[in-house]
This record gives sequence, C-alpha cells and structure tokens, in this order.
Amino acid sequence: MTDSGEGRVETVNDVGPGKHMAEEVAEQPDVLAKLVQARSDIATVGDAIVKRSPRFVLLAARGTSDHAAIYAKYLVEVLLGLPAGLVSPSTTTLYRAEQDLTDVLLLTVSQSGGSYDLLEVTQAARSRGALTVAVTNTPSSPLEEAAELSVDVQAGTEKAVAATKTYTATLLALYLLVDAMRNGTGEHVADIGELASRTLTDTVEDVERAVARYRFADRILTTARGYSYATALEGSLKLSETSYLPTRAYSGADLLHGPIAAVDTETAVVGVAGIGAGGASMLDVFATLSERGADLLCVGSAAWSVPSASLTIPVPEVAEEVAPILEVLPLQRLALELALARGFDPDRPRGLRKVTRTR
Amino acid sequence: MTDSGEGRVETVNDVGPGKHMAEEVAEQPDVLAKLVQARSDIATVGDAIVKRSPRFVLLAARGTSDHAAIYAKYLVEVLLGLPAGLVSPSTTTLYRAEQDLTDVLLLTVSQSGGSYDLLEVTQAARSRGALTVAVTNTPSSPLEEAAELSVDVQAGTEKAVAATKTYTATLLALYLLVDAMRNGTGEHVADIGELASRTLTDTVEDVERAVARYRFADRILTTARGYSYATALEGSLKLSETSYLPTRAYSGADLLHGPIAAVDTETAVVGVAGIGAGGASMLDVFATLSERGADLLCVGSAAWSVPSASLTIPVPEVAEEVAPILEVLPLQRLALELALARGFDPDRPRGLRKVTRTR
Repeated sequence: MTDSGEGRVETVNDVGPGKHMAEEVAEQPDVLAKLVQARSDIATVGDAIVKRSPRFVLLAARGTSDHAAIYAKYLVEVLLGLPAGLVSPSTTTLYRAEQDLTDVLLLTVSQSGGSYDLLEVTQAARSRGALTVAVTNTPSSPLEEAAELSVDVQAGTEKAVAATKTYTATLLALYLLVDAMRNGTGEHVADIGELASRTLTDTVEDVERAVARYRFADRILTTARGYSYATALEGSLKLSETSYLPTRAYSGADLLHGPIAAVDTETAVVGVAGIGAGGASMLDVFATLSERGADLLCVGSAAWSVPSASLTIPVPEVAEEVAPILEVLPLQRLALELALARGFDPDRPRGLRKVTRTR
Repeated sequence: MTDSGEGRVETVNDVGPGKHMAEEVAEQPDVLAKLVQARSDIATVGDAIVKRSPRFVLLAARGTSDHAAIYAKYLVEVLLGLPAGLVSPSTTTLYRAEQDLTDVLLLTVSQSGGSYDLLEVTQAARSRGALTVAVTNTPSSPLEEAAELSVDVQAGTEKAVAATKTYTATLLALYLLVDAMRNGTGEHVADIGELASRTLTDTVEDVERAVARYRFADRILTTARGYSYATALEGSLKLSETSYLPTRAYSGADLLHGPIAAVDTETAVVGVAGIGAGGASMLDVFATLSERGADLLCVGSAAWSVPSASLTIPVPEVAEEVAPILEVLPLQRLALELALARGFDPDRPRGLRKVTRTR
C-alpha cells in the first residue's frame, strides 16, 4: 500500500475498475527513463552525503516504501560497505528513545512525504545529530522540509491506491543515490526505461497464464533472497491489497527455518530467480518447495533455470543489484489482473479509503 | 522454529504427541528463575561491552531467535540510546560485503550456536572490527567460539522442534545484558519466574477457550506494537509451525497501511495489549479491526481494556519492556493445544526433520 500521508486517495467513480493502477503500471518505462536523465541531481545529493562521511545508515519507511528501504539496505551494506538498519518508528514516537545519532545517515523513504510518524522520526534524528535525507515523490512535503537534504523521485501524481510507479521510481532513485556515493556512473541503469518497457510487453501472456492459475488460489507465498527479497515483499503486498489474498513473503533462508512446515500441495508459491548470487541461492529453496508439492511460479532473469517451476515469467537480464526494478513489473500486473478476475476493483480497495495516520 | 544448527532434532517415537513441547513450556518458570540468579555472569559481559563504548548495534539471528533479536533492538534503541539494525546474513554470505564495523557491537542470537550463516556473519564482523557477542543456549558451540564474548542462555537441552523455553530465556538474557549495560539491577525481572508460573497456571482455561474457537480457523493474524511486536511474531511462528496455519504477524502501524484490506469477518486476529505505550497505541488498531468484523483475541496485561475482544487472556502486569517474556507463554500453549486438537504432533512437524543449513 501507500506509505500513507495526506490527500492520497481520490474518488475513482469516473473510470473503470483498475484503470488508474493499469495506467500507472504502464507509465513506468517513461518514469524510469526520465529519472535516469535526472541522475546528476541525485548525484549532487550523493556528493553532499559523502562529504559528511556517515558511518552507519538508518532507513525509515512504511508500507511499499519499506520494501524500497529494504532494497536500499542491501545496496548500502554491499556497495557502500556501511552497516545499516531499519528504523522502528515506535522507538521514537511511542518510547521517545534518545539515541546518539552522530555519524548516522538517516534515509527516510516516503512517496507522500506526509506520514506523521516518519516526519517525527526524521525531525528527532536531525535534532540528535543524524544527517537526514528524504527520498520522496512529493517535493515541498512536510518530510522534505524536515530533512536536511532530499531526493525527488519524480514519478508524477499517483492516483491508484496501490503504489506501483512510485515504488520502482523509488528503487531507481535509491540506486542512483548509492551509486553516486561510490562514484558510479549509473551504467547499470542507463537503459532501464527501455528494459522496463520490454519487460511489460514480453510478459503479457505469462501474466495471463498466472492469473488463470491463481483465480481460485486460497493463499500465495512469495520468496526470494538478497536484493530480490524486496521483490518478494512488494509482490506479496500488491497481491494482498488488491485481491485480499492472504499472502506472505519470506526470505528463502528464513522459509527453510520453520515456515516450510506449512507448505503443502495447496500452496501457491511465487519465487524470484534472477542471475547472480541471490537467485543461485534460491535453487535449494525451490527444490525443497518442489519436494513438498508446492506449485511454483518463477519470475526473473534466471527463471528458465528452475526445472520444478510450473510457470515462468522471464525478465531481461541486468546487473543483480538493479534487477528488482524489473522483476516487480509482472507481479504488479499479476496483482491488478488477478483482482479484476476475482471481481475486485484494485483502485478501490476495501478499508483503505481514509488516510492512515499512525504515530 | 529453531534457528537451525547441528544435531537439533531427535526422534520422539517414545513419547506421546506434543510431550516434549508441553514439558518445555512448563519448564519455563524454573528456567527463568535460574537465569535471574545468574545475572552477575551476564552483567560481567555487559560491563566488558560498555568498556568498548560501541556506537552502533547490529543483531544477527534466524527464526525464533530473530524475534528475540527484534525485541533486543527495541531494548538497545530505547534503553541504551544507540542506533541498531538487524543483519541480513546474505550481504555477508552471498555478496561478501566488506563493511567497516569499527565501533559496532554485533549480538548474534542463536540457541544452537550452529547455524553456518550466523557463524560466518560473526567471523566476518569480528575480522572487520566489530565487538562480537554470542547469545546462545549452547556453550562451546562454533558460534560461541567464534565470538569474542558470550552470554549463556542456560535453558538446558531443548528436545521439541518448536522452540519455547530457549525463546523466553533468550529474551530474559538479552534484557539482563542491556539492563547491565545501563547499570540496572534487574529489578523488573526479579520475580519473573514466579510471574511466569502464575501466567501458565492462570491462563489454562482461557487457552482452552481459544483452542475451541480456532479449531476450524483458516488463518490467523497476529498484531502488536513496540516491545510486544516480538510476541506477535513469535506467536505467529508457533501457530504456523505446529498447526500449519497460514499465519502472519504485523506491527499494528503497518497493518493499517494496507494489509487491513484483507481483513474481514473470516479473519481471526490475536492482538497483544499490555500496559504501556505499545499497548495503548494498539487501541486504534483494535477499533479498526472491529469495524471490519474481525474476530479478536487479546493477550496481555491490558487485555481487559479492549471492549471489542471476543476472548481475552490476561497476563500479570510487569514493566512494559519485559512483558514479552510473559505474553508469549499462553500463545505457546495455544499453538501446542491447537495442533493436538487438529490432529498434529507438534514434536514432529512436517518437513522439519532435517537440519537446516542455509548460507
């Protein structure tokens, strides 16, 4: 879902079911291509961060943006070599923790920039010595004003309640920021817009087959490792919030440590298998799922390499650290089309009309 | 589940279904009381940590121990005022991240002390400058030898596959460690053994009622905020691994940011409501769940204050930061009894016979 905030949901009586979500899914190639063009703006922020030499990175986010933050955690640890952690907002908002945040970089990720709790976390962190950076789709939002620096995700207004284009644009913005901090040139995402376009075009029929297969599914489990864990989390949330399916995402490693016991022949599993270390480490997980009779759909650039998959959705090959930007695209459309097939309007999810305000 | 490791599972042909789990649930008051007696051993480790003045804390764990680590993250942030994060083992084991961990304290939590990935994370962190501390139930395990310092959880051999006494003992050990680091005297847990005993004795009938109510439940959602979020996570895992129910835990705040859409009159919710800021912040969440017609079971010292709960399981009042040690007790027994009622043997979970080895 959205990461809450003000004025986020508008009425959609004037358009057909899922129209907003479908349009925004389709806009992503352009949004991503445009953001790559703005790389130098993001690099300026990256340079400013590097000058302050942060030694520890905290990430604060909610909902869909939380999955982007988890992706960024891997980028920070692997590409920047810095320890990182996700903020539990309640330690600030409920327990008034007085942390010493000298040498800490706080990245607050919020498409709306309006979540009260993230605003409070950001203000508190800044007052306690952290360098605060807002990554948001809403310039001049309260969050953007509270943070010392900011990155504009530039995805344009998002009308659908289910976040799609703001998610992939946020992933790309975070990648460009981290890449700039290590003096990268953005080469791995130079043609990400075109690749996103190809992904959406080439997976239409695969998604149709998946919709047919899941029309009567009771529950769906998603799983991945490494960078793509964010894809499993976001795919799970999209399916849950549009089709009301009980879904759950697991890191492949965690899945084998217990929850595998609940997997049986009735379990539909969406696994992510891209090229690289994360995808390779999933092969054991897929084999175990297969032994237990689970039905497996594999998404990713190495989906072809999983013999036990009953369906595959290949996506173009890119550097592993940017694959999550592409992998989620067919899953967004799966969520959209499955909701429609099950008679729901993904633009009007039950119980999500009002702005979410948590402290 | 367990956090994996060597020689963890033994055959249980010689005893009745759930016998090991039942015995170990019942042992907890003694285990906790004994550990409080060993407070000074743990305080010695706490003093050694303080001398090194760590500025950031990382926590590494898997499975049930991961929930104990999440509890510890709140303790560290709120009681010690240090920023903290959970380690994604794959950034070390799959991506070989070369992080600068000077001034970092790594707490590796593993009851078995034998998980390969946690061992590798600990060794790598130590070589990169972190102060490494193992919190384990297995002294002289590979993990304990790899870490510079260690805390012995002293729960005794755990025969059941579903971890119970090692979980609560680990929570208590982590609390005692953090409390020692801020020169505490352990006063909030002085009589925790006796309170645990009272909790188990006084909730027998409440748990029976919950078992009857959930006999035919399709899925169960658990939710809490703050310190008790660990209780929601662990309660969810216990139910999932013994009764094969699709369960899922949400922080109350995250639940309102999207997943609430999937909640309807068929949803069974277990919520934690203790005294203190975390429990108070759940009242809005419970009200929203009630509006959506969900069936709510409330566990905790403030369960009585939730009018929409159809069942309550009160536990004795303690300081909020140690309440998770008590709150989980009736949930462990609910998992055990529900599994038996549904015809499963919680000591012989499907698919969990073998040692889990993830990298």
